Amino acid sequence: MEKVIDGDEISSRVRDEVAEEVERMDRTPKLVAVLMSDDPASETYVRMKRQAADEVGIDSETVHIDPDASEDELLSTVEELNDDETVDGILVQLPLPDHVDEERAIEAVTPEKDVDGFHPFNKGLLLEGRPRFVPATPKGVVRMLREHGVDLEGQNVVIVGRSDIVGKPLAVLLLSRDVNATPTVCHSRTENLEEHTRKADIVVAAVGVPEFVTADMVSEGVIVVDVGINRVDGELVGDVAYDEVSEKAAAITPVPGGVGPMTVASLLENTVEAARLRQK
Amino acid sequence: MEKVIDGDEISSRVRDEVAEEVERMDRTPKLVAVLMSDDPASETYVRMKRQAADEVGIDSETVHIDPDASEDELLSTVEELNDDETVDGILVQLPLPDHVDEERAIEAVTPEKDVDGFHPFNKGLLLEGRPRFVPATPKGVVRMLREHGVDLEGQNVVIVGRSDIVGKPLAVLLLSRDVNATPTVCHSRTENLEEHTRKADIVVAAVGVPEFVTADMVSEGVIVVDVGINRVDGELVGDVAYDEVSEKAAAITPVPGGVGPMTVASLLENTVEAARLRQK
Repeated sequence: MEKVIDGDEISSRVRDEVAEEVERMDRTPKLVAVLMSDDPASETYVRMKRQAADEVGIDSETVHIDPDASEDELLSTVEELNDDETVDGILVQLPLPDHVDEERAIEAVTPEKDVDGFHPFNKGLLLEGRPRFVPATPKGVVRMLREHGVDLEGQNVVIVGRSDIVGKPLAVLLLSRDVNATPTVCHSRTENLEEHTRKADIVVAAVGVPEFVTADMVSEGVIVVDVGINRVDGELVGDVAYDEVSEKAAAITPVPGGVGPMTVASLLENTVEAARLRQK
Repeated sequence: MEKVIDGDEISSRVRDEVAEEVERMDRTPKLVAVLMSDDPASETYVRMKRQAADEVGIDSETVHIDPDASEDELLSTVEELNDDETVDGILVQLPLPDHVDEERAIEAVTPEKDVDGFHPFNKGLLLEGRPRFVPATPKGVVRMLREHGVDLEGQNVVIVGRSDIVGKPLAVLLLSRDVNATPTVCHSRTENLEEHTRKADIVVAAVGVPEFVTADMVSEGVIVVDVGINRVDGELVGDVAYDEVSEKAAAITPVPGGVGPMTVASLLENTVEAARLRQK
């Protein structure tokens, strides 16, 4: 097994598959991003997603809403997109302004177009093991490991971090009968964290703390997935101390060029899936 | 700490609390069971739940549907109960006949009256850590441990079994910020199961295999929760080999008289909660 799990290369394969699927479809899928923010980071994320969509032949559009506008304005925009027959996927870029209830905004997106997989109904389907849209990062992590030749069945996977967009949905996905891994979810209140991570076949770091996972926390031959994207002194740094951990790891994802591009590719897959479900 | 975790005693305390709450309410909550089965076990379960409701002052009713009736008949009955202002909680007793789509039936119950917590929307809220109705068995397990004086925070809890009604929702509940445990979910495909269970502070057995968890699988001082209810030669047997495991355990739930009565008490709590939410 190659040591470095190359997210750029694997995601490029996934995107090629998506492009082929789009070509075979009767109608071009369309993804709409709702952006209610002036934050440059949010604008960058939306631009990246749209550019990726463009490259595989998915139509896309950004609907800008003034950050000072009311919650009602956001909700009625989402309603219109729900009813718009030409729109397959809707993503509400987070975070939203403080005066807007994020949960209400997410629940306003019809579950059939919720390509982020953030709507409670879609999370419930995931928990039941019959997902419609798996949240993009967990989906990308599993795909990436498989493409790298990692057999997840029966494996002891320790996830560090219990976020709503990574840790929790990833644990649920790993438990599904398609994957059959044995997940443990650790977090800030976990006692003896290193005892868990040292016994893991696979460690997934998703805590949002730069270089949190160090070499002494893992065993020789471990497989390490780094979901973190932290900006430190202008550089992107993961949640794993890459240099020291990679000396012990059998395989490891870099930052950047690891999980990040997989996340975007998964969003494109979900958009095509949404278009396909709506054709039925 | 007492060795035997007495579900009868603890659930009776919970039911007393529920009775007091019901007394304080302006309107008597009402629970309706929809029974589409001639199976004596299903009839018994419904009777037990209604009797428990009666004892705490919750009104209840059983709507019988002929097992040979159509799925549409079931769905329209559920619709009527959704619209009935006097009904707070609806439970569709499972299993349903083969010609009825169970998922469709569960999704037909409005999430506001889904006191079983089985609707995907409610499961999604649970996964997000803002549950409305926690499924009765996981809710009962956590309550029971707490009432027995077990501090779950940071503890290594190994769940054996990944069912939709116990293993998966319990893992999610344990992860919530109210509980802060560190859950691992094991199942039939887990490699080296005993390595997980031997390291656990708490083992929850929910596999449906009589006496599956044996003394050699656990450590001295472990806390054991037995969710299994198996009928063997006319007797009720749990998923834990009680006699041998109890010699090593610091605390253990018996079968019967353990998790079972807690499950019923949790359903009553959910029904009162449903009535309270509808009053708002």
